[in-house]
Amino acid sequence: MWMAELAERSGVPVPTVKFYLRERLLPRGEARGATRASYDMAHVRRLRLIRALVDVAGFGLDRVRQVLAVLDDSRTTLHEALAAAHQLLSPEPDIPPSEESRAAVAALLAARDSRADVDGRHATALAAALDAMARAGQPLSADGLARYAAAMADVARAEVGGVLEDDRDEAVTYALLGSILAEPVLLGLRRLAHEDESLRRFTDLAPPS
Amino acid sequence: MWMAELAERSGVPVPTVKFYLRERLLPRGEARGATRASYDMAHVRRLRLIRALVDVAGFGLDRVRQVLAVLDDSRTTLHEALAAAHQLLSPEPDIPPSEESRAAVAALLAARDSRADVDGRHATALAAALDAMARAGQPLSADGLARYAAAMADVARAEVGGVLEDDRDEAVTYALLGSILAEPVLLGLRRLAHEDESLRRFTDLAPPS
Repeated sequence: MWMAELAERSGVPVPTVKFYLRERLLPRGEARGATRASYDMAHVRRLRLIRALVDVAGFGLDRVRQVLAVLDDSRTTLHEALAAAHQLLSPEPDIPPSEESRAAVAALLAARDSRADVDGRHATALAAALDAMARAGQPLSADGLARYAAAMADVARAEVGGVLEDDRDEAVTYALLGSILAEPVLLGLRRLAHEDESLRRFTDLAPPS
Repeated sequence: MWMAELAERSGVPVPTVKFYLRERLLPRGEARGATRASYDMAHVRRLRLIRALVDVAGFGLDRVRQVLAVLDDSRTTLHEALAAAHQLLSPEPDIPPSEESRAAVAALLAARDSRADVDGRHATALAAALDAMARAGQPLSADGLARYAAAMADVARAEVGGVLEDDRDEAVTYALLGSILAEPVLLGLRRLAHEDESLRRFTDLAPPS
């Protein structure tokens, strides 16, 4: 496909596509004469991933570049690429998490018999998020954390089941996109559920006049 | 308590507390002489809420001000204040959501017998998030959406149960803080669950050498 179709299929405007080409975030197309190049579905997927990282995850170009470098490292297996790229999604906390929160995360992972890395970025980000709750005067109990973990494990189990294994690049891009794009969906559903629960619980106390 | 203790208890540095006072995000303390004022737990709670809105939810001061204005409107009941402040958490989408996604959200709310407002900001934000998935070539099926909704309803039910009803301001602040601060916890747990699932599924295919 030509540039115009690439822009249309990916939803990324032509000037932005050119910018990503110049910044080497997007590989060049196959040259067809002096001024034209042809692109394929790998380019579409790559552009969709860049947009999700920028627009939904709020990444700057540096962090986008790190994620893409992992995908482009052909020495890694599907799992290694997935794990490495995925780790980059979790923010590095400004303040190292407390020992208590680290221990709470370690205890949770042990109780769930999880293979996730207790010193990895997801575990560190979770410990930092627990610290933020404690600092705000609303520490999360071990029971509360376990209940959250069970709900999110149900969600994740269904999601990872959908990852294809035949094309490594496609599989990793698909998994990363799903991971990023589903976050606002999950948070939106939680807010709608709060709205519903709150109406059920408090409306009888204060009926509309 | 004096300013120093207020800063310590809320985790907000003194110069920032003074800035919030000047910006009228934080009500003045009770004057004790010409240069000192005394503060109470309502000030601590307010500062914690501002920090969560700025640091965790990423709000600018304008959006913080909107949320606080709702809390400070004493004409509203607990439920009204909660609903209004909570609606402000959901971003206004840049592009109005498609009719298809709006219909998918309406069908979901009807199927779940939800009382949430189908034209409210949460529903609109959810529809926009569904559009983003479709645009990225990964539309979420009605089944997938229903499964996510069930998981998040379980989460929300346990959370709303924890809201106290005796002090309106305290209850609303508590609920908003919980809503914001638990988001990174939930997303972190989902990522850890993905990491675990991915290791279980793909490690046998490509054992480490």
